[in-house]
Amino acid sequence: MIYLDYAAATPICKKARLAMEPFFTDRFYNPSAAYTPARETRAVFENARHDIAKVLGANQNEIIITAGATESINLALGSFSNVLTSQIEHSAVLACAGKNLVKVDARGRIDLDDLKNKIDEKTELVSIGYANSEIGVVQPLKEAAEIICAERARRSKRDNKTPIYLHTDASAAAGFLDLNVARLGVDLMTLNSGKCYGPKQVGALYVRAGVELRPLVHGGGQEMGLRSGTENVAGAVGFAAALAQAEKKRKSEVGRIKILRDDFESFIIGEFAGARINSASKHRLPGIFNFSIEGLDGERAVFALDFAGVMCATGSACAANSGARSHVLTAIGLTDAEADGSLRISLGRFTTQPEIEQAKKIFKKTLPKELEISQKQGQMW
Amino acid sequence: MIYLDYAAATPICKKARLAMEPFFTDRFYNPSAAYTPARETRAVFENARHDIAKVLGANQNEIIITAGATESINLALGSFSNVLTSQIEHSAVLACAGKNLVKVDARGRIDLDDLKNKIDEKTELVSIGYANSEIGVVQPLKEAAEIICAERARRSKRDNKTPIYLHTDASAAAGFLDLNVARLGVDLMTLNSGKCYGPKQVGALYVRAGVELRPLVHGGGQEMGLRSGTENVAGAVGFAAALAQAEKKRKSEVGRIKILRDDFESFIIGEFAGARINSASKHRLPGIFNFSIEGLDGERAVFALDFAGVMCATGSACAANSGARSHVLTAIGLTDAEADGSLRISLGRFTTQPEIEQAKKIFKKTLPKELEISQKQGQMW
Repeated sequence: MIYLDYAAATPICKKARLAMEPFFTDRFYNPSAAYTPARETRAVFENARHDIAKVLGANQNEIIITAGATESINLALGSFSNVLTSQIEHSAVLACAGKNLVKVDARGRIDLDDLKNKIDEKTELVSIGYANSEIGVVQPLKEAAEIICAERARRSKRDNKTPIYLHTDASAAAGFLDLNVARLGVDLMTLNSGKCYGPKQVGALYVRAGVELRPLVHGGGQEMGLRSGTENVAGAVGFAAALAQAEKKRKSEVGRIKILRDDFESFIIGEFAGARINSASKHRLPGIFNFSIEGLDGERAVFALDFAGVMCATGSACAANSGARSHVLTAIGLTDAEADGSLRISLGRFTTQPEIEQAKKIFKKTLPKELEISQKQGQMW
Repeated sequence: MIYLDYAAATPICKKARLAMEPFFTDRFYNPSAAYTPARETRAVFENARHDIAKVLGANQNEIIITAGATESINLALGSFSNVLTSQIEHSAVLACAGKNLVKVDARGRIDLDDLKNKIDEKTELVSIGYANSEIGVVQPLKEAAEIICAERARRSKRDNKTPIYLHTDASAAAGFLDLNVARLGVDLMTLNSGKCYGPKQVGALYVRAGVELRPLVHGGGQEMGLRSGTENVAGAVGFAAALAQAEKKRKSEVGRIKILRDDFESFIIGEFAGARINSASKHRLPGIFNFSIEGLDGERAVFALDFAGVMCATGSACAANSGARSHVLTAIGLTDAEADGSLRISLGRFTTQPEIEQAKKIFKKTLPKELEISQKQGQMW
């Protein structure tokens, strides 16, 4: 089986596995306990926080360890009343934000003028995904940060004391893009361990010093009072090791994966008449491409490809599961037929050239048959 | 080092470790993806849910997998407006409940008459910890359930449509007490994997069919819409294996551990004049005892015992960390001096008779010295 769905989940890398190992059984202590082995465990946990902060160019006390991106997003967005976001965000962001969404263009890049217009004097938080996990488009975060900076200056002049912050969900960006929070100009950043070769059910929220959040869960007061519950030492240590490794390999992996992606993408375009790449922006992740073939039934195709030996997706795993049409593809202007005829291919650290060659063969065999079936079904209706 | 703080954290047992293993790397798939290996992973995850439900005598769809007891408690209690709880609950419960608390007696058992009196027509949820992690006292849950049942009948007659439910935090009870939700008469039950030899950062909330909750985190709609976020397959599988194992070993372990606990407790009483057992109730967990020695500085004693080779606690790890005096010991009537002079010993699956003998020697050597120092300090003030 060839795995081409790295955007849905990544295996835990060896470094992370080895780092986690001692904390399952030998060093299982509650880091809040008072004796020496527990205090040593606390030190390891704080060191993991430090290592995560380092990748972001942040301070250790600006990192909250959470149970994953969804919780990080809820913690960030749930702390503010007026949240503005874009049309193509993850469902967790959309669930926590207002209904007046910033438009995106045909490649999925946010419309910066629309962002400017939609920020009003009450907007407390703007949340823009760094890179989209369905189509791979990378957003102009720095430009968004500048708009927010200008709004802050305006508010200061008008004596409007409402703060305005920028949050980004960088789950899909880790290991591919620069995560330095100062260079990006973000105040809050969500990260997801399970998407960058760390353990699942671990994430982080970067919270710039001075930004005040409201906890979602109350209790023992762990994580500076923002996230109560016994600390997940093994998880944090695994995440920190995975993130550091992803950052270390970033430049070489971006180059390697982009070549494989471009090769496969060219094959698709060349092989299937009527195939179109959704979001062929130059601003996109190297490992993802999403394409539509008119007349294809994407959901059927995923099953046929699975049967033939390739694992891929129609869109995000959550959306796929609910059977809903992708709001991302709709937002970038695809017709229902185009959206329903789309597939997402996402490559990762263990994708090889021979795998891509094999995948090409499988696609060449499988998709024409699928198209034929879809067309026959179409005639029957 | 002898570990006598099983109430703070337990190591992951071998069965749980082995069960988790494949889901870190080989079977790391997102269970919401559509291809066969992912659907197999989904089946394993649902099977873990089934196994957890089985221990509780519940249905599979009544179990929500969470990131631990604190989240389970917040999800349960956060869904209701008028929550009544007791004086000796975990900080997560107290943080989510009202301020009018049900009294406990000198052994920490809730006053059932006071519970009856404090339930008013608006009370939506009563939350009573099954067993207390600081003093080990086991609550009369069935009797509490009967009181709530009677209140339901009264409301029905008066056409009061406000529902009233019983939640119990059974984190400390798993592996020691019967968890059957029907026999206990509870509507909601919190469980914590990290306290019963499963991985940390995993928990469950039993939600009786028909009880409606409000999600804390919104997003992809996992866990029947009550808890969004990519499912923690490894964690759930580990928890299920640990809980099943704890249930299987329950009767033999209760007997074995009680003998060791009683032996150590008798030694403490016999050895140290003025030692008193806090909550010497017959209704208590077999593995925990909490004692006070007048004039002892509990916090100092924990460090001295740590230095001498025994890991134990003054109270809960959270409270210990914050330096606050235990609200549990205060509630059962201890003076400040008695509360400050208390230690909690908690035994578990890997506690052995030779360890207890060794611990006795260490206590015999260490505590008199500590008492001497404390007394000298007392004279100096």
